[in-house]
Amino acid sequence: MFFRRLASTAASSSPPHPAAYRLAPTICQLLSGAPPELPSSTTTVSGWIKSIRKQKNVSFAVLTDGSSYKGLQAVFLKGKGSHGLTIGTAVRLTGKLVSSPGVGQSHELLVDEVQDGEVEVLGECDPEIYPIQKQALSTEYLRDNAHLRARTSHIAAMVRLRDALARQMNAFFTAQGFCYAHTPILTGNDAEGAGEAFQIFPVEGVHPASITPPSSPPPTPLQPPPEFFSRPAYLTVSHQLHLEALATALSRVYTLSPCFRAERSLTSRHLAEFWMLEAEWVLGPHTKDKRDMDEVCSFVEACLRNVVLLGEQSMKDDIDVLWKDGNEKKRALLEKAFSHINSQAWTRMSYTQAVQELSSFDNARASSKFEFKPLWGKPLQSEHERWLADVFVGGPVFVMDYPASLKPFYMRANDSREPGQGEEDTVACFDLLVPGVGELVGGSVREDRADVLKCKMEEAGLGGEGYKWYEELRRYGGAPHAGFGMGFERLVGWVGGVDNVRECIPMPRWAGRMLL
Amino acid sequence: MFFRRLASTAASSSPPHPAAYRLAPTICQLLSGAPPELPSSTTTVSGWIKSIRKQKNVSFAVLTDGSSYKGLQAVFLKGKGSHGLTIGTAVRLTGKLVSSPGVGQSHELLVDEVQDGEVEVLGECDPEIYPIQKQALSTEYLRDNAHLRARTSHIAAMVRLRDALARQMNAFFTAQGFCYAHTPILTGNDAEGAGEAFQIFPVEGVHPASITPPSSPPPTPLQPPPEFFSRPAYLTVSHQLHLEALATALSRVYTLSPCFRAERSLTSRHLAEFWMLEAEWVLGPHTKDKRDMDEVCSFVEACLRNVVLLGEQSMKDDIDVLWKDGNEKKRALLEKAFSHINSQAWTRMSYTQAVQELSSFDNARASSKFEFKPLWGKPLQSEHERWLADVFVGGPVFVMDYPASLKPFYMRANDSREPGQGEEDTVACFDLLVPGVGELVGGSVREDRADVLKCKMEEAGLGGEGYKWYEELRRYGGAPHAGFGMGFERLVGWVGGVDNVRECIPMPRWAGRMLL
Repeated sequence: MFFRRLASTAASSSPPHPAAYRLAPTICQLLSGAPPELPSSTTTVSGWIKSIRKQKNVSFAVLTDGSSYKGLQAVFLKGKGSHGLTIGTAVRLTGKLVSSPGVGQSHELLVDEVQDGEVEVLGECDPEIYPIQKQALSTEYLRDNAHLRARTSHIAAMVRLRDALARQMNAFFTAQGFCYAHTPILTGNDAEGAGEAFQIFPVEGVHPASITPPSSPPPTPLQPPPEFFSRPAYLTVSHQLHLEALATALSRVYTLSPCFRAERSLTSRHLAEFWMLEAEWVLGPHTKDKRDMDEVCSFVEACLRNVVLLGEQSMKDDIDVLWKDGNEKKRALLEKAFSHINSQAWTRMSYTQAVQELSSFDNARASSKFEFKPLWGKPLQSEHERWLADVFVGGPVFVMDYPASLKPFYMRANDSREPGQGEEDTVACFDLLVPGVGELVGGSVREDRADVLKCKMEEAGLGGEGYKWYEELRRYGGAPHAGFGMGFERLVGWVGGVDNVRECIPMPRWAGRMLL
Repeated sequence: MFFRRLASTAASSSPPHPAAYRLAPTICQLLSGAPPELPSSTTTVSGWIKSIRKQKNVSFAVLTDGSSYKGLQAVFLKGKGSHGLTIGTAVRLTGKLVSSPGVGQSHELLVDEVQDGEVEVLGECDPEIYPIQKQALSTEYLRDNAHLRARTSHIAAMVRLRDALARQMNAFFTAQGFCYAHTPILTGNDAEGAGEAFQIFPVEGVHPASITPPSSPPPTPLQPPPEFFSRPAYLTVSHQLHLEALATALSRVYTLSPCFRAERSLTSRHLAEFWMLEAEWVLGPHTKDKRDMDEVCSFVEACLRNVVLLGEQSMKDDIDVLWKDGNEKKRALLEKAFSHINSQAWTRMSYTQAVQELSSFDNARASSKFEFKPLWGKPLQSEHERWLADVFVGGPVFVMDYPASLKPFYMRANDSREPGQGEEDTVACFDLLVPGVGELVGGSVREDRADVLKCKMEEAGLGGEGYKWYEELRRYGGAPHAGFGMGFERLVGWVGGVDNVRECIPMPRWAGRMLL
């Protein structure tokens, strides 16, 4: 009431209202808003020289400000302002934005210093020592220069792609009635005892020996540091459990948030710090013909299709920039996979069916069999997942209903059994496998029966006070619900055809490596 | 190219395209989409019983699914399905959505079990032990029940408000040409040596004594844990420095990301884990009449005005819910302040002017003087900030150009001096003070001159290898840029009139306290 009364007076202010303040247009905004036939108006643009070509009477430079993959061509007609410009120099150029007679750009900036053109150097860049030279730079070299690597076209495209994907995600979840929520990063949960968590201490509580180089011996024995939070604190490995708490109040919640794993394995798919898209929601009614898992898979499929297909043109341009870096084989796989994004419904199969298909294929082969024999009750190996997505389906595939022993305690036990299923019960879960990446999304219906959950938690050694709150969510009006998690870097890698997740986040952290 | 070719085939699939999949509407969607005169169609809704009133032939319940502050009134006409319903029970109701004859709601759900109405209990909730009873619950009690507190109206409204504010932020920054970026949470930066950082270790490297209750004595002396990243790692206290690196490539970047401070002080304005909106951008041209600080303040002002004023109606409804909890004095202050959001340009004054105003006021008072005498060169105390925002201006106020010694090394030194300024130089910075909260935003122009920065870093004891990358940003095409940080919980507290930041985040963490 109060707020509305005030808001209704907003129109009384005289223009320009301070809320209407705008920064000067970026190159992207300038070019996308520019009509093909421009009145010859004076324009000022800032950015960095991406390339420069000097001729006797005229020089050409491409100016980038990172706002899109396209730079703005600047043509220097007269004057000496352009003489000292080198790659990487920060400049502010004033000139006339005109339609370009050249190919490759719709507009260009004519800088005529004899008229009102101006070249202002904002920051020099010594071409002899500038680490980001024009020639191709190795991935490893750019990792060593993490503070500068976003100045290359493909890392800049990746950062913009993250922005675009996050925006599409937000739009999708908002339209579906979800609330974006911030669940804790610091938690008492030590990754369900898996031992891959980071533990935290206030610096004051850490022995000085541990903050000097490890080569110096500790001067005195260390005492256990005091607990800042009155109990041990870890960095979260997943936001799921906390999101579930919010889902019992708000029905539909999601987050895009950092997660951490102290994994020492160095693969192209793992980081110590990564971002996860996680969602939890109360399920709609299921009927005889419709399992809860149908809703879960349909929702995840719709999410990915929307995010990838509905992105604006600039996102598609950035994807093209990234694809130029990809290797041919992966490209072929993904080309096939992306045709699925546009048309066919994605394949869904049970774990049991998957094992049957893998076995038939493996048995029929005389040689070059799988390294691991596909067996019901054993995890699907990377080679199995790759065959299913890359070869058997040739597109995204949901593998559902894994044996309970392969999955965490919180997944809902299935009531029914299927032909070919082993002795063991299965749980209502899925992994979404995509060509070239493997597992992109994992999720499940959550166990909503308090007593069943309690038994499973006790079996998993989580029967203590620490997880009592999680069990209580079911005791007080627990509703059937489901959720999933998607590694954001893997999504970027899939959509952009980027081989290693280290090139899917601006400043990656992995075991042994944390620059900046 | 590749991507575009594929995307152009999207239209060929037959309806319904899997991308068009939608979950069942939430109560919010149902009510906002419903025409005043409804065809009497059968509708199924899930949620929790918020209140129930049983009469002889008819019962009334309010069903909430957390999608908006409004519940859906359900009217049970016949049948026994509603008999066992108690507060907190999760149900799925099927009935007819009709225009409501009652006041307080536009529509209601008629559940007639003799016709096709249905009441399905999804999860029971024992009214004897349910912690979220209908009567008013103390803030402290709800903190103890952090996993359930989003089931109360005002915590649910706060969580939705965060979602709405984040969405408005994203819309504002996107329109201004900014790229949303994820900068690292784990960093080698120990809060510029301020000693308020958390340090992290992999659990494997932590002595078992520190993960058992602190009462048990350590069985053996601790060894310094091995470094997971080959150097000490801390939780970031700010994303600024890393955002600056991205701003030297993408021109305009922002993030909404978690930050951490191991601060032991227990105030209503500090958390150990909090979210910060931070932005960095390359400045436009400044002229004789326009300082860089004008652009910075105008941009921050536009940001806040847009975020608060352009929110959709549901956000304003949630703000109203929160204001009902606020105290009268704060409400009066904020009522005045919000009128500024709608109309007048916000006051800007220099630190020097602020000290002069504070001194005049203090000198003129015979008694009840400030506890701390306002003196040029000393920090503004909370009492000073409150007087400036609450009393002197009665609205948001930018205080600019603080003495260099009061601010961090990265702020740009001012070239000019002003009358009344002390001996010392000032820096081009601002704090935005708002009534009832104090400092809501802080920012500055960044020192872009490599040599000046280098001196200041050495003075601050940061001359080593660890920050060399930061200095290099200026050596290679550094452009004048500025940035700011805004505590997201403080924003929520300001807009929602919430007294303590612990009620501005779903699951708060502070010294000594980390539930869940």
